[in-house]
Amino acid sequence: MAAPRAVLFDAYGTLFDVYSVALVAEQLFPGQGQALAVLWRDKQIEYTRLVTTSNDGAHYQPFWALTEAALRFACRKLDLPLTPAREQQLMNQYRHLSAFPENRRVLQALKALGVVTGILSNGDPQMLGVAVRSAGLSDLLDHVLSVDAVRRYKTHPAAYALGTDATGLPASQVLFVSSNAWDALGATWFGYRTLWVNRWQQPFEALGTPPTREGSSLDDVLSFFDTAS
Amino acid sequence: MAAPRAVLFDAYGTLFDVYSVALVAEQLFPGQGQALAVLWRDKQIEYTRLVTTSNDGAHYQPFWALTEAALRFACRKLDLPLTPAREQQLMNQYRHLSAFPENRRVLQALKALGVVTGILSNGDPQMLGVAVRSAGLSDLLDHVLSVDAVRRYKTHPAAYALGTDATGLPASQVLFVSSNAWDALGATWFGYRTLWVNRWQQPFEALGTPPTREGSSLDDVLSFFDTAS
Repeated sequence: MAAPRAVLFDAYGTLFDVYSVALVAEQLFPGQGQALAVLWRDKQIEYTRLVTTSNDGAHYQPFWALTEAALRFACRKLDLPLTPAREQQLMNQYRHLSAFPENRRVLQALKALGVVTGILSNGDPQMLGVAVRSAGLSDLLDHVLSVDAVRRYKTHPAAYALGTDATGLPASQVLFVSSNAWDALGATWFGYRTLWVNRWQQPFEALGTPPTREGSSLDDVLSFFDTAS
Repeated sequence: MAAPRAVLFDAYGTLFDVYSVALVAEQLFPGQGQALAVLWRDKQIEYTRLVTTSNDGAHYQPFWALTEAALRFACRKLDLPLTPAREQQLMNQYRHLSAFPENRRVLQALKALGVVTGILSNGDPQMLGVAVRSAGLSDLLDHVLSVDAVRRYKTHPAAYALGTDATGLPASQVLFVSSNAWDALGATWFGYRTLWVNRWQQPFEALGTPPTREGSSLDDVLSFFDTAS
């Protein structure tokens, strides 16, 4: 099979390390940081699904707003006192995430191969813009695509179609990379070739469709190009 | 405002007590029963959303199959050895749930008021049939509606529309009752009057739309009829 002509990356957890969020949560709420980070993330994703599925997306809110709502819910549920200052400190972590160390190397290798590169993320354009600039990735990405353009979150097909529309390629010629199993699954269902970056040795979703490949870091993206060109 | 002319109930967690599932999980996996029950339930709901949102429902599987898939995932994730016998034992709990004790009384009161009653559930028809018969509620329910008819899980509007279609009433004249906050939210967005049965003093979803009312048991359904007729 020919090598992919474009590679699209999920952002949060895939290109950008969200672990620092848990560290700040632990500083603010000692002993509860991990529980808060997990519930916050779960709720953030749950809210993207609720607003996408209900009434055909009529209740859409940008990712930043859903992230804030999820934080407020998580603190109420865990009975943690979320002052405005603490909320601002935690939310700011989402603006200034560090990139995983192998990112630049992998993106540079893809550019050297002439492969189109991009992000396809639930994040809203402002969040993504700051994250890409902070990580110094601007010159290595041809596309920074936010689902905000279609007001539907992944795994809605309108969200994944942003990638085929932007690249002008059929999904089968595009590799979609995500460290979120549900995202790798949704992209596989959409028709993309997929790499699930399983950084923490988790089981894949049990819905019967595997990703094209599974890897442990972004370096495994390059395995799709080993025998090609 | 006039009293509702029909009351539709969510099934799992609302009419039927899923707590026994956690008890069996704890017997099978001592010290891990609660964690398994929570993850299993979360994953079950997550899977309903993934198959509903992706590719316009093309990956639909009935609730029983998703419940089984979620159990398998949860055991893998928690590193619990799920033998076929254990799987069967846990799945059987979903077939034979007990009803909350106030159910019959509330349904009888509604029938005495001439109110149309029903279930509107993610469960597939077979699961619901067994549960309703086991709980002895068959004679008190005018409708037992499964989202299987439209192959879209709640909170998809096609799922909620089963209730207006079956009753022939506008959503504003129907009370939808759920102990799941996300379900009460989705039903409110759809246009139903809603009661969130908050049995465990949880915070409501932080997405800006409250249910019509909040209660602590199904008895609170009757509060919608206090000043009417």
